[in-house]
Amino acid sequence: MPSRTPIEYRDASPQVRAVFEDIKRTRRVEDVNNFWKYLAHHPSTLVRTWGSVKEIMAAGALDALTKEMIYLAVSVSNGCPYCIASHGAAARKAGMSEAMFGELMAVVGMANETNRLANGYRVPIDPAFE
Amino acid sequence: MPSRTPIEYRDASPQVRAVFEDIKRTRRVEDVNNFWKYLAHHPSTLVRTWGSVKEIMAAGALDALTKEMIYLAVSVSNGCPYCIASHGAAARKAGMSEAMFGELMAVVGMANETNRLANGYRVPIDPAFE
Amino acid sequence: MPSRTPIEYRDASPQVRAVFEDIKRTRRVEDVNNFWKYLAHHPSTLVRTWGSVKEIMAAGALDALTKEMIYLAVSVSNGCPYCIASHGAAARKAGMSEAMFGELMAVVGMANETNRLANGYRVPIDPAFE
Amino acid sequence: MPSRTPIEYRDASPQVRAVFEDIKRTRRVEDVNNFWKYLAHHPSTLVRTWGSVKEIMAAGALDALTKEMIYLAVSVSNGCPYCIASHGAAARKAGMSEAMFGELMAVVGMANETNRLANGYRVPIDPAFE
Amino acid sequence: MPSRTPIEYRDASPQVRAVFEDIKRTRRVEDVNNFWKYLAHHPSTLVRTWGSVKEIMAAGALDALTKEMIYLAVSVSNGCPYCIASHGAAARKAGMSEAMFGELMAVVGMANETNRLANGYRVPIDPAFE
Amino acid sequence: MPSRTPIEYRDASPQVRAVFEDIKRTRRVEDVNNFWKYLAHHPSTLVRTWGSVKEIMAAGALDALTKEMIYLAVSVSNGCPYCIASHGAAARKAGMSEAMFGELMAVVGMANETNRLANGYRVPIDPAFE
Repeated sequence: MPSRTPIEYRDASPQVRAVFEDIKRTRRVEDVNNFWKYLAHHPSTLVRTWGSVKEIMAAGALDALTKEMIYLAVSVSNGCPYCIASHGAAARKAGMSEAMFGELMAVVGMANETNRLANGYRVPIDPAFE
Repeated sequence: MPSRTPIEYRDASPQVRAVFEDIKRTRRVEDVNNFWKYLAHHPSTLVRTWGSVKEIMAAGALDALTKEMIYLAVSVSNGCPYCIASHGAAARKAGMSEAMFGELMAVVGMANETNRLANGYRVPIDPAFE
Repeated sequence: MPSRTPIEYRDASPQVRAVFEDIKRTRRVEDVNNFWKYLAHHPSTLVRTWGSVKEIMAAGALDALTKEMIYLAVSVSNGCPYCIASHGAAARKAGMSEAMFGELMAVVGMANETNRLANGYRVPIDPAFE
Repeated sequence: MPSRTPIEYRDASPQVRAVFEDIKRTRRVEDVNNFWKYLAHHPSTLVRTWGSVKEIMAAGALDALTKEMIYLAVSVSNGCPYCIASHGAAARKAGMSEAMFGELMAVVGMANETNRLANGYRVPIDPAFE
Repeated sequence: MPSRTPIEYRDASPQVRAVFEDIKRTRRVEDVNNFWKYLAHHPSTLVRTWGSVKEIMAAGALDALTKEMIYLAVSVSNGCPYCIASHGAAARKAGMSEAMFGELMAVVGMANETNRLANGYRVPIDPAFE
Repeated sequence: MPSRTPIEYRDASPQVRAVFEDIKRTRRVEDVNNFWKYLAHHPSTLVRTWGSVKEIMAAGALDALTKEMIYLAVSVSNGCPYCIASHGAAARKAGMSEAMFGELMAVVGMANETNRLANGYRVPIDPAFE
């Protein structure tokens, strides 16, 4: 089956359904995002990706909101439209206010600017940072 | 003057010295990073960049540590060696522990992976995220 | 003429038509992709780009399917929607099965993840790889 | 412990040693690369990353050499120096000749060029590729 | 207010209106682009970004058209659809002909190709360029 | 022969020597850059790349200096250290003053910032730019 159509729960294999159920239980949602429905075309990728995301995004030394905001920041930096939309929603659901979003965007923009200034001016690493 | 040498405080113009002093005062450091010493070759860029960084990185809806970690995450994602070194130091100075760093890295890595999965599987944005 | 409209064979200059014919003959297609119809706005770019692609993508030490898959992998990594769509089609036409696509995507995703881990952990190159 | 030093087998915890042994066994090498010695600073990342790489890089619908070459192509495209060095070595070890490397490089270069041409000419996706 | 709707002049605060008026006066346009209407959700970002753009894009050692073309080149290289559209329009308005656009695109494409060739062949910097 | 050593003129094949001579004649230099000495490991890539660069970088609707500056801007944006060094030298040789370089860097930095702002704020393309 080509991967240009989403695999819905009702059409999914038992293995895929098990993953969908775990996602829904963990995230307390009614249905999984399109992202998982498309990854379901390659079950091993679906299983491994969900396993990794579940482990990585659980609160730890960083709380869940901070992790969602870092995920959003990277997605904005990389310019992935799907990811910006879905992780923007996830971050807001985790507690990101519009003021926090505005500040996150300011940091992401500035970091992308100064990264290029450091590149172009060929700045050597300070000994203190080696 | 070509920009392959850093401009030290002692050789700097009054305009550049004023910026260096504000950086040192704001960050409570003895000397500014190489980044600023190289930007000093183009004073208008130095003035504007420091002004923006100072404004953006001040604690607001997001605290200073969270901002430093987002800055580091973007720098890692972009692969800028200078920025990874200097912002890694800044984040640790602001309170990032090694456990936090490890979790930040895990999120940055995973986001870069799933951004490409979303690209390659051509996942359409869910209506709920429009 | 602005470049927001495609140049169709019927409206093309003799120089552009010659390129279109060579593309169609080489790829055994009825009509060229939009990509070539838009590049046709700058004939020297069209001529040079097709010449390069034709030379590079011919089977050699790497077979044509492997080359198409590498092209798709880079396009996915860069997040170019047009390229992902057109090179996905080209790779499937050259023999990429859905199982191969799933494995290619897994590699592209993982490589993008570990590239950032290597960046952020500032891993020095092993002497054996110098 | 900060992550600016590698963790050698002799100083590693049992959990990390188990991963190092699996890497060495799977890859038939005497010692693991620096990449794993640095990831060892965050054992959960080491465990998960090795688990994913081991699963993804095993021969399947794509053989191991093709997978190594895709990994190298993405690393070249992203400009990660560590990854280019280590995956270049891995691909050569898996059977990539210098002629294959030259052709891989030509494809990676061309794909990066045409990705931008497609971006800048704002080429719409052909209906046949939707 | 979430940032999925543009802020029009009529609904804007006095601070935001002042920025909109300065943009319209400087650029001699009837209304500002969507970009500014969305940034208006975070007034400090709007103020700072317009201030920077106004300063940076004014004719200096480089004329305004050259600056617009560099801005477009970077936007094409990064693959930002909004930016390619808006900066393409800005560059044409500043005097970029279709022939200039074609040549700019050829340079952007080639630079993206040779950047990867330099990466992958691991070319050391010539002493003369240190 | 592996590609970790440069191929010098004295050790080059007649085909490679012919390309080196054309580069030296066109650029009025005593010896070619390392970039060409490494590409020489894959003669077809050397021939095609030099042919393309020679054609693209010749003065046309854009003069040679403007083309060199665009090339440098893209290289800075992509963060390729070799390219930033070599194209910085080429641009200066073509007439780029330090004041021009400073302004180019300011534009490159700003474009990378606003590209991400446009991404993250999900700004729709204005009808006038379609």
